[in-house]
Amino acid sequence: MEIKVMKNIMHSNNMIAAENREIMKDKKISAINILASPGAGKTSLLVKLIEVLRNKVPLAVVEGDIAGSIDAEKIDKLGIPVVQINTCGGCHLDANMIREALVTLKPADETIIFIENVGNLVCPSSFDLGEKLRIVVSSVTEGSDKPIKYPHVFQTADLIVLNKIDLIKHTDFDRDYFYKGVNAITAKKVMEVSCIESLGIEELAEEILKCCKIQEK
Amino acid sequence: MEIKVMKNIMHSNNMIAAENREIMKDKKISAINILASPGAGKTSLLVKLIEVLRNKVPLAVVEGDIAGSIDAEKIDKLGIPVVQINTCGGCHLDANMIREALVTLKPADETIIFIENVGNLVCPSSFDLGEKLRIVVSSVTEGSDKPIKYPHVFQTADLIVLNKIDLIKHTDFDRDYFYKGVNAITAKKVMEVSCIESLGIEELAEEILKCCKIQEK
Repeated sequence: MEIKVMKNIMHSNNMIAAENREIMKDKKISAINILASPGAGKTSLLVKLIEVLRNKVPLAVVEGDIAGSIDAEKIDKLGIPVVQINTCGGCHLDANMIREALVTLKPADETIIFIENVGNLVCPSSFDLGEKLRIVVSSVTEGSDKPIKYPHVFQTADLIVLNKIDLIKHTDFDRDYFYKGVNAITAKKVMEVSCIESLGIEELAEEILKCCKIQEK
Repeated sequence: MEIKVMKNIMHSNNMIAAENREIMKDKKISAINILASPGAGKTSLLVKLIEVLRNKVPLAVVEGDIAGSIDAEKIDKLGIPVVQINTCGGCHLDANMIREALVTLKPADETIIFIENVGNLVCPSSFDLGEKLRIVVSSVTEGSDKPIKYPHVFQTADLIVLNKIDLIKHTDFDRDYFYKGVNAITAKKVMEVSCIESLGIEELAEEILKCCKIQEK
């Protein structure tokens, strides 16, 4: 019985995700679903990407959190349209939440919408939101075994970002082991960045623009 | 319909958790459920605690992971009895998994069983395993806003560990903000540790011994 209900939830989610994808395709809007552990630096990365991209394309942000609006307040201060979704304990965003966020945001044509998912390296990877691009952010302070221990989120991502690269010298992070773990499960690109030292941000922004233009799911 | 099924799952889990608690109480066994984000340092902390506690009490470990047995292998090398539970994509351990682990481990009377839950700051906090003590581990590299953003896991913990304190000087971690966040939702104790510099480990081991003896759920 449990499995049956889960299938229903997934089927319903996928239907709505497909609708979201169609709606956005018509307006050339690109949604980017950002997945990571709590504290991997999703919001800091968003702030840095907004700095680089804000004069190039219309931007909007959907913030997913269990509680509060700390992250949405940071984005709002930058003058970027933002919607906060509180899941009230829920461990992931789903496609229906994004459908409602789209109604609220009313994004202009060709907008890039960054969706910061709930900090969780497990559950969000099972829920298609209708995004064009899925990015998983892993940070060096989490250790180099994350791709091996949480394979699904890395497998389903279109792009992998390795964050907090400035801290690598203070940790026992094993870069070879991390890349071996990634390469064992996916051929997707890894981009290394540091938000504090602004390393790799411009390159990541360029890659995002490229993916949003040429990659069709 | 979804909610009804969820209640059934929770009710069933809580029944088994209560049975686990009774079984362990009879043998004066203490299970410690350790919750944290991926990469917060649960396994490193376990290794350090084992060093301090192994000559004082019988120890055993249950490793919960989505995939693989990396962490269990680390514990096995120390000569401590360990069971690896692979959730195969599942985002948390449940009481039935622990019931089966107890059958496999056959722990001696007065054993302390450390249960390393799946790296996830959301879902595991809703599942009672029958533990005597619940510890949440947060690391300074995750940022100081975790108690505010993930309140349930901090509220349901008996003890809060702030790990990777050696890295605090390399981050923008705001200690006052972290403690304010904790104190706003719980009166539970926070203990600061560093596994790399072996700071606070002996004190934490003492606290665990104290809690296991005097605290009854």
